[in-house]
Amino acid sequence: MIAIYPGSFDPVTCGHLDIIERATGVFDHVIVAVARNLEKQPLFTVEERMELLRQACGHLKNVSVDCFDGLTVDYAREKGAKVLIRSLRAVSDFEYELQMALMNKRLNPDVETLFMMTSAEYSFLSSSLVKELAYLGTSVNGLVPKCVEEKLLAKLRMSRAGG
Amino acid sequence: MIAIYPGSFDPVTCGHLDIIERATGVFDHVIVAVARNLEKQPLFTVEERMELLRQACGHLKNVSVDCFDGLTVDYAREKGAKVLIRSLRAVSDFEYELQMALMNKRLNPDVETLFMMTSAEYSFLSSSLVKELAYLGTSVNGLVPKCVEEKLLAKLRMSRAGG
Amino acid sequence: MIAIYPGSFDPVTCGHLDIIERATGVFDHVIVAVARNLEKQPLFTVEERMELLRQACGHLKNVSVDCFDGLTVDYAREKGAKVLIRSLRAVSDFEYELQMALMNKRLNPDVETLFMMTSAEYSFLSSSLVKELAYLGTSVNGLVPKCVEEKLLAKLRMSRAGG
Amino acid sequence: MIAIYPGSFDPVTCGHLDIIERATGVFDHVIVAVARNLEKQPLFTVEERMELLRQACGHLKNVSVDCFDGLTVDYAREKGAKVLIRSLRAVSDFEYELQMALMNKRLNPDVETLFMMTSAEYSFLSSSLVKELAYLGTSVNGLVPKCVEEKLLAKLRMSRAGG
Amino acid sequence: MIAIYPGSFDPVTCGHLDIIERATGVFDHVIVAVARNLEKQPLFTVEERMELLRQACGHLKNVSVDCFDGLTVDYAREKGAKVLIRSLRAVSDFEYELQMALMNKRLNPDVETLFMMTSAEYSFLSSSLVKELAYLGTSVNGLVPKCVEEKLLAKLRMSRAGG
Amino acid sequence: MIAIYPGSFDPVTCGHLDIIERATGVFDHVIVAVARNLEKQPLFTVEERMELLRQACGHLKNVSVDCFDGLTVDYAREKGAKVLIRSLRAVSDFEYELQMALMNKRLNPDVETLFMMTSAEYSFLSSSLVKELAYLGTSVNGLVPKCVEEKLLAKLRMSRAGG
Repeated sequence: MIAIYPGSFDPVTCGHLDIIERATGVFDHVIVAVARNLEKQPLFTVEERMELLRQACGHLKNVSVDCFDGLTVDYAREKGAKVLIRSLRAVSDFEYELQMALMNKRLNPDVETLFMMTSAEYSFLSSSLVKELAYLGTSVNGLVPKCVEEKLLAKLRMSRAGG
Repeated sequence: MIAIYPGSFDPVTCGHLDIIERATGVFDHVIVAVARNLEKQPLFTVEERMELLRQACGHLKNVSVDCFDGLTVDYAREKGAKVLIRSLRAVSDFEYELQMALMNKRLNPDVETLFMMTSAEYSFLSSSLVKELAYLGTSVNGLVPKCVEEKLLAKLRMSRAGG
Repeated sequence: MIAIYPGSFDPVTCGHLDIIERATGVFDHVIVAVARNLEKQPLFTVEERMELLRQACGHLKNVSVDCFDGLTVDYAREKGAKVLIRSLRAVSDFEYELQMALMNKRLNPDVETLFMMTSAEYSFLSSSLVKELAYLGTSVNGLVPKCVEEKLLAKLRMSRAGG
Repeated sequence: MIAIYPGSFDPVTCGHLDIIERATGVFDHVIVAVARNLEKQPLFTVEERMELLRQACGHLKNVSVDCFDGLTVDYAREKGAKVLIRSLRAVSDFEYELQMALMNKRLNPDVETLFMMTSAEYSFLSSSLVKELAYLGTSVNGLVPKCVEEKLLAKLRMSRAGG
Repeated sequence: MIAIYPGSFDPVTCGHLDIIERATGVFDHVIVAVARNLEKQPLFTVEERMELLRQACGHLKNVSVDCFDGLTVDYAREKGAKVLIRSLRAVSDFEYELQMALMNKRLNPDVETLFMMTSAEYSFLSSSLVKELAYLGTSVNGLVPKCVEEKLLAKLRMSRAGG
Repeated sequence: MIAIYPGSFDPVTCGHLDIIERATGVFDHVIVAVARNLEKQPLFTVEERMELLRQACGHLKNVSVDCFDGLTVDYAREKGAKVLIRSLRAVSDFEYELQMALMNKRLNPDVETLFMMTSAEYSFLSSSLVKELAYLGTSVNGLVPKCVEEKLLAKLRMSRAGG
């Protein structure tokens, strides 16, 4: 059984990695798929995000990293995946995810969305929080994989030098 | 991959059946497991509930029906199952299920709880609503499998004759 | 347009009365309907609750007080009412009421449930809170109509003398 | 009794239309009122949105379509309407709508906000979801009235040719 | 500044203890007050619960343990306390606590309710969960103070021998 | 005990003032601290917001007004404050605040976040609502302190003359 874990991953956090690790224990293969989202202003390019994911998931055998355009359910069909994995942290997540899951079910009844609850220690964590902390000069140690921490500092130094 | 779908199923509804059917498309085998709960006052005995589940799931090959005492994660371990399936209908479900999932993770880190969203047309449905409607003499057609509808009417006739 | 405002009203509070008054400004006639609920242990009998409602609504011309058994939508049909009024205080109300409204729509598509938000000053108020306060010997002045306050004290004196 | 159903309607969806149809069964006349909102970047002009609403509501006798500036309660007063209709899909809707209703009550105590629950099959639907799906090249058939579907495709073709 | 932390504490958990410890860092003196609640069926007597609290809080200097009847705000007035401490774990807690805080404010405007968020690692924990786990024969190590764990096991042995 | 009440205060409302007044009854000294937030587009400058806060709090002895950059917990440490005060209005507030509190606890375990519930009459109130109402030409009397009302009107006249 192939499962897809779609997201922005700008950048991948320890919360994402916890979900990926747990998912690899359940499914034969997990594709972590970066959604190319034209409207947002990401800190990292899609290629950088994929590279960070690859480094962070280096210890996991049944994981591959990819990216996609368009609808998640179309991408799932293309990959022969029957499962989408989404994580739930809080009630506000829940309502958005419920709407997405109902919509995706309507768009492609053959793809199931399965939800995993974020571990308690990461329930406050998000990519945007990580970026905000880094921007304020606060250590993000323990919140993101080591490779992300380094890349994040380099990125901010560059943007400051550049600005 | 074996998955366990635990619950009271007093009685099984079309909402439960929808989850079971969708789960059988994702997992190799699904064990629908009736929890023996000492404190509640069920309408149907555990044996009756298992029999109704067996009839309702007769068309599904990779489903078996069972019952268990004690902790769900202990039962999962015993059955060699790494996945618990739970359904989410609403925010109030979400909070209870989040607490249960975090607790189960602590009790047995090898078992993952995966959540499925109830289909929109069953979002208002529960076993207790079905029993209340039947008690008030209202048809439950379309809310429960045919076999449950008949058994429910027979049960209520009996309880009225008996009372 | 006739509207039905169903509930337990055990006893009617200033929050209920606020909804009733506002509803009389919108609908031609409002029937406040006490649901005979066999399972709960009410403090006041259905007849007492109706009498208190009649006194509390004495200043409103287009209100009548009634009681009913069975499904609310069946009672609405019988009365020629196309509208059920329900009040919303909080998120937990919301989810229960959403399920009820979806269910009632399915049972009788001709009856619409319309919701009114409880005024901010009564957002913490419920019949059970009123009874708990009275039981603890605290004044419920300003939380219930005057007639309810008196009846409540009499009731508690009686139950204490009796117990 | 005149009721106003205010909104952005950019564009009207089958969820909106379901509310309008149900509202016409309850109120003598329903004014569907497009709010001119200066800050957002709508896909359709106010005039286009009104024209689409008129086509979508062509089969309903007691509906008129209008637009307004400023406060909804001021517009209601001007039209002699005592009722605002709002729909509720989810908990996040609920909190925003509760705040709006309390605020509107304070600004004009003579206008009541009445809420209707969105039908289960449209609980995931919103104008922005429709626009996102159309943008991604996915069919929105069954989610919006036929006239909206056509206009939406034309609009997107134009914006692509233009861009 | 004296603060009161009221509750059932049947029995005290590590979640409660975390709140008490954090509160002692903020307030001059913290009174942990067991509410005598006539309606529930507690596992431990009020005296046992107070004794367990005293043992669990033995390392904290500015804590005392007490019990009370009636309204919490009346008890606070009697003790010269201006602050009630309550903990928040989840949305369902939030709504109940909001109603209680608004009510208490009305009953005694001089007493403020201050809320503390439960630490992430105890967000799933409650006294009833602890009792359920112990009843099912599962270790509650790490969920309750050591003294509670022992007393709980003794209690269950007794009740089984007695039953 | 020194407490910090951080926020944007763009501008201070009667809801904020209610929290400040209640906090001064609990803590020795309350620092109302305007967060310099680089990303938003405030209506009032940080200096204007501080001046309005000073005028609005003129009757309170143990309040001072300040501003800060960076992390709130770092600012608290610098000021020797062990308490952050935050207000809760609704479930959506709750989730955001829970995440912030857990994050702040991780960044600085010595600082406690204490929450106060907004009074019922201000539960619908926010700075952005006030600005929206003023922009639409509606009176904000009773929603903001007198000094804010005047400044707000002057600001809008200026921006209109200027635009």
